[in-house]
Amino acid sequence: MVDLTQVMDDEVFMAFASYATIILSKMMLMSTATAFYRLTRKVFANPEDCVAFGKGENAKKYLRTDDRVERVRRAHLNDLENIIPFLGIGLLYSLSGPDPSTAILHFRLFVGARIYHTIAYLTPLPQPNRAFSFFVGYGVTLSMAYRLLKSKLYL
Amino acid sequence: MVDLTQVMDDEVFMAFASYATIILSKMMLMSTATAFYRLTRKVFANPEDCVAFGKGENAKKYLRTDDRVERVRRAHLNDLENIIPFLGIGLLYSLSGPDPSTAILHFRLFVGARIYHTIAYLTPLPQPNRAFSFFVGYGVTLSMAYRLLKSKLYL
Amino acid sequence: MVDLTQVMDDEVFMAFASYATIILSKMMLMSTATAFYRLTRKVFANPEDCVAFGKGENAKKYLRTDDRVERVRRAHLNDLENIIPFLGIGLLYSLSGPDPSTAILHFRLFVGARIYHTIAYLTPLPQPNRAFSFFVGYGVTLSMAYRLLKSKLYL
Repeated sequence: MVDLTQVMDDEVFMAFASYATIILSKMMLMSTATAFYRLTRKVFANPEDCVAFGKGENAKKYLRTDDRVERVRRAHLNDLENIIPFLGIGLLYSLSGPDPSTAILHFRLFVGARIYHTIAYLTPLPQPNRAFSFFVGYGVTLSMAYRLLKSKLYL
Repeated sequence: MVDLTQVMDDEVFMAFASYATIILSKMMLMSTATAFYRLTRKVFANPEDCVAFGKGENAKKYLRTDDRVERVRRAHLNDLENIIPFLGIGLLYSLSGPDPSTAILHFRLFVGARIYHTIAYLTPLPQPNRAFSFFVGYGVTLSMAYRLLKSKLYL
Repeated sequence: MVDLTQVMDDEVFMAFASYATIILSKMMLMSTATAFYRLTRKVFANPEDCVAFGKGENAKKYLRTDDRVERVRRAHLNDLENIIPFLGIGLLYSLSGPDPSTAILHFRLFVGARIYHTIAYLTPLPQPNRAFSFFVGYGVTLSMAYRLLKSKLYL
């Protein structure tokens, strides 16, 4: 039997595992942020969620949308759209034998850019703060995709 | 050449592969549920989808939203938001050499919680059924993230 | 230390890495398409994004929705809903020792179907072009899930 724990002795793979876990945990915080705003602002999407705040017609008034909640949800969706390619491409890139310092630079830039993107989206900071952090993360992922396909393309 | 089939001889990795495949297949069923409600209720998002039900202005009346369809779509999006962290963190956690019985308990709890979450969302069951199943899945994923970072943090 | 670069010597895994990277890069293009339509049509979701186009009340008129932008966003979300199961199930299937030519046929069909799905969604082509490409991709993923669980189920 292969000793899988050896896989985690690889420097690049360990670094990828750490950065991926950090950015996924950050993404999960978006669910908590949505729940926080929904509860404090009494803004719900489902009738069964409003029951604690009133009965019948009185509860239905909480079935509404709210700028703050929608902003968190847009930030969350943007995370999904960008972190998924990072996870998939980053995992495969980590296994393609990249130079460790180059690879770790990619991971650090991506995680830093996405944390800054969340801050810029939720504060909100004026543009181009959010656009800039978006494109840094986007460029890092494309750079990993390019390096992976250049060295390992097999169709 | 490394014999990749050996990877699948690892007990934890095989279990992760099975549970991940099951929960992803369940998530895919949400697409079918959306299509089912769209067709039986004649509720569409795209003009080209309505053509079979009428021509011109007559078809446009089917471009609408529907509570039932929106509920399935919210359940699907919630799946995406929670199953992606499980996939990424769970894969890396599986490779970090965890205790097999602890790891498999994590996978079982997560898959059970998410299946219950879908039932609670689509029935719908009264709260806190859905909230409870959400937090079980959320907690399981955070527990794997904590265990992974505690043993393998490398930044 | 295990030499991780050996993993990439496996024919199926290399092919999966290439096809997964290509389809994820395609998915990332949807963000660029959304940004393109938002900027050329002046349709924004956030007040801070409109500032360059006017001040105060004059800028607020750009906070609106647009058929073209919503169409790209639906196509992007459909990508997320379908490419994530392909990534998770495909990765695990690739590691389960499948027949190389069968596995590569799965990857090619999925990538081809999803590229055609995007073309059918954005043009838009009349139905059932989009429905057909959706079900090809869906069936390919379920076929990999079935093969994986048949050979490696471990609960």
